This record gives sequence, C-alpha cells and structure tokens, in this order.
Amino acid sequence: MTTLNDKLAWRYATKKYDPTKIVPDDKVERIVEAVRLTATSSGLQPFELLVITNAELRAKIQTVAWNQAQVTECSHLLVFAAWDDITPERVNMMFDLTNDVRGFTNEGWENYRKMLLGIVADRGTEGNFQAAARQAYIALGTALVAAAFEEVDATPMEGFDPAAVDEILDLKSKHLRSVVILPLGYRADEGDWLVNLKKVRRSRENFVTEIK
Amino acid sequence: MTTLNDKLAWRYATKKYDPTKIVPDDKVERIVEAVRLTATSSGLQPFELLVITNAELRAKIQTVAWNQAQVTECSHLLVFAAWDDITPERVNMMFDLTNDVRGFTNEGWENYRKMLLGIVADRGTEGNFQAAARQAYIALGTALVAAAFEEVDATPMEGFDPAAVDEILDLKSKHLRSVVILPLGYRADEGDWLVNLKKVRRSRENFVTEIK
Repeated sequence: MTTLNDKLAWRYATKKYDPTKIVPDDKVERIVEAVRLTATSSGLQPFELLVITNAELRAKIQTVAWNQAQVTECSHLLVFAAWDDITPERVNMMFDLTNDVRGFTNEGWENYRKMLLGIVADRGTEGNFQAAARQAYIALGTALVAAAFEEVDATPMEGFDPAAVDEILDLKSKHLRSVVILPLGYRADEGDWLVNLKKVRRSRENFVTEIK
Repeated sequence: MTTLNDKLAWRYATKKYDPTKIVPDDKVERIVEAVRLTATSSGLQPFELLVITNAELRAKIQTVAWNQAQVTECSHLLVFAAWDDITPERVNMMFDLTNDVRGFTNEGWENYRKMLLGIVADRGTEGNFQAAARQAYIALGTALVAAAFEEVDATPMEGFDPAAVDEILDLKSKHLRSVVILPLGYRADEGDWLVNLKKVRRSRENFVTEIK
C-alpha cells in the first residue's frame, strides 16, 4: 500500500476486534497528534479528545452503545467531546493562547475576536454546541485517515446514548458533550461480517459535479 | 516531509493564493477520490461534492463569502453540499446500491434499513439536514488531510452565506444545501499574513485526557 487512497480503500468500519492485539503507543500518539492538529473554525478547537483504555468504563459505555462489542474488544476507545457552549471565556482562552504563542497582539486579530464574541453570543448555547460538534467531525475525519495511514482499524460510531456516556465519563462537569466515539484496534481473524464485503460508495458521477 | 503529521503541521488556512498556479488534475482527482471514500454514518454519504473552476460562478460566490479573494484566486473551489433531508428515497437508494454492489440481500441489513427509515422519519427534515451536515464535515476532514498529503494548499471556509451560495449553484433544485467550502491551490510567494506565523493548538495536556 503506497498511496493514501489505497489505505482509505483498505479501511472499513471494523465489526470484530481481536482483543489480544494492542495498538502500539507510538501509533496511538500519532493518531492523537493528527487530531490535535486538525483545522477548526477560527482555530477554536472546540472539543476535547478522551483516550480510554480503562476496562470498567468501557464496559459501562458498551451498555449504552447498543451493546456493540467493539467498545470493549478494541485496543483504545477515542471519545470526541464537543464544548457544550462556546463561551466568551473559551474564545478568549484560544485568542490569548494565539497571542502568547505568536508573541504579539494585532489589531486585525483583536477585531476578529470581538466579531467572533458577538457571533457566539447571538447564536446561543445550543447553536454553539452544534457548531462545535461539526468541528469535532472534522477531527473524526482526520482520525479515520490517520488510523488508516497507520494501518490501524477503526469503527466510527454514532450509535450510543450521548447523555449516558457524558454521565459515565463525567463530561458535564467539564462542560463537554460526547458526539462521536471511535474504537481503535486490530480486526479479528474471524467473526467480522463486514470485512470481506465490498466497500460501497456512489460512483463519481453520482457524487461529484464539476463546473468548468 | 515523510510522516503524515509533518504534512498536517505544514498545512494552514491559506490566505493568499497564486492564481497562476493550477493544481494538476491527478492531484485534484486523488483529493476528490479521498472525499468519495470518506466514512459516513450507515454508509449514506449524505452529501455531494462540487468542484468549481468556472470563473464567473466563483466571482459570484466571492461576493457572498465576505469577499474573500481565495474563492477566486485558488485553483479549484470545492463545495460540500449536504442533503437537505434524508428521505426514504435516499436511504433506499444507498441500501439498494449496497445490495447491487455486494450481489445479495441479507435479513440483518434489511432490518437495519427499516430501523434507519424509522429514525430519519422521526428526526424530521431539519434534524436530518443537521446530521447530514456533520457527515460532510467528516469529508472536510478527509479533504484537508488528502490535500496536505498532496502538498496542495487549502482554506476551509464557513464564512459565506449558505442560502446565497445555494442560489448561485442552483442547489435547491438538487435538494442540497452548502455547508462548507474549500479553496485548493498554491500559496502566493507574498501577501499571506498567516503563512509565517506559528500554528497554534492547545497543548496535549489541555486537549487530551487518557483514562487508564
């Protein structure tokens, strides 16, 4: 496998993991770092990433995730947790960090900060959470490509009760809400109904429109 | 640059393109193909991708995109357009395609189809659009990584009037709604205020929580 698209064609939503195969730390770290580097709107990174290996917590999560065994049989469970609101404190934290890292302040940037503070105030809590959740999905896209690049299997999952996962992981106290989870690991040799089935995507002509 | 994360560190939201530099067709095709291969919830691919090189349309889009010059100075403008609703026809189209490609029907899959048809009926048009938009953001994540992998510059943009872009591109008649746009091209040698500034991301400890 030499091209990125060969790896994207190789990946699939793994249905059965081999629980004895653990993803090496260096691979997990590169996937986590790719997520951290993900582009987000205004650079806010309005989400956090949880990396869960704890067996007890994963067993609890499985019970609120349609009992999907990948949650407990995978090597590492990633949880993408969006900010429950984009508050002025959070916006200012990122703008201040930017000034700190770059070592200067800038009038254009400060005007942009004010404009953004106005936008998030107008949008309200639920609108801000939905906007933050979309950003977490950019990161999910990054994680899926990064995992495939590392030849690590992964299963993007929306099939869980977010409020219950938030409770299990005490996310409310951190003002976070779980939006999507991603088991990482290695496919089992047997027992995966999907592994040998053809990948299905709409044809290029039913998916892409070129306007020249 | 040898690792994927080196390329992700290299990329940035390009502020100034060189309009004389055109992304080669083979690179555009690989980025488009990566988007087409993107994982989506239940495999629905609930969005389409427009690849716009037409100068007149891009000039119109620029006027409803805060006049950002990247829209017209880039090489190719990608528009991610989500389904305006997840209708039974669209669900059935993807489930039928899956059966066609795999050459068989399966009771489990047909039961899943019925369950999903119930979910989308309950969720309603706006909820379905929001769910589809999130999936388009997974694809945005893929596109950003794929562009970086090809060493093509890109600028993810939410700063536009979606209804106006839908009008310009006649998306309503296709039952699509624009959610995010992505200029692709090559950075200009001069005039980009961001290119030499440090990339800012929260530290690993302020972004990642490991639960062992």
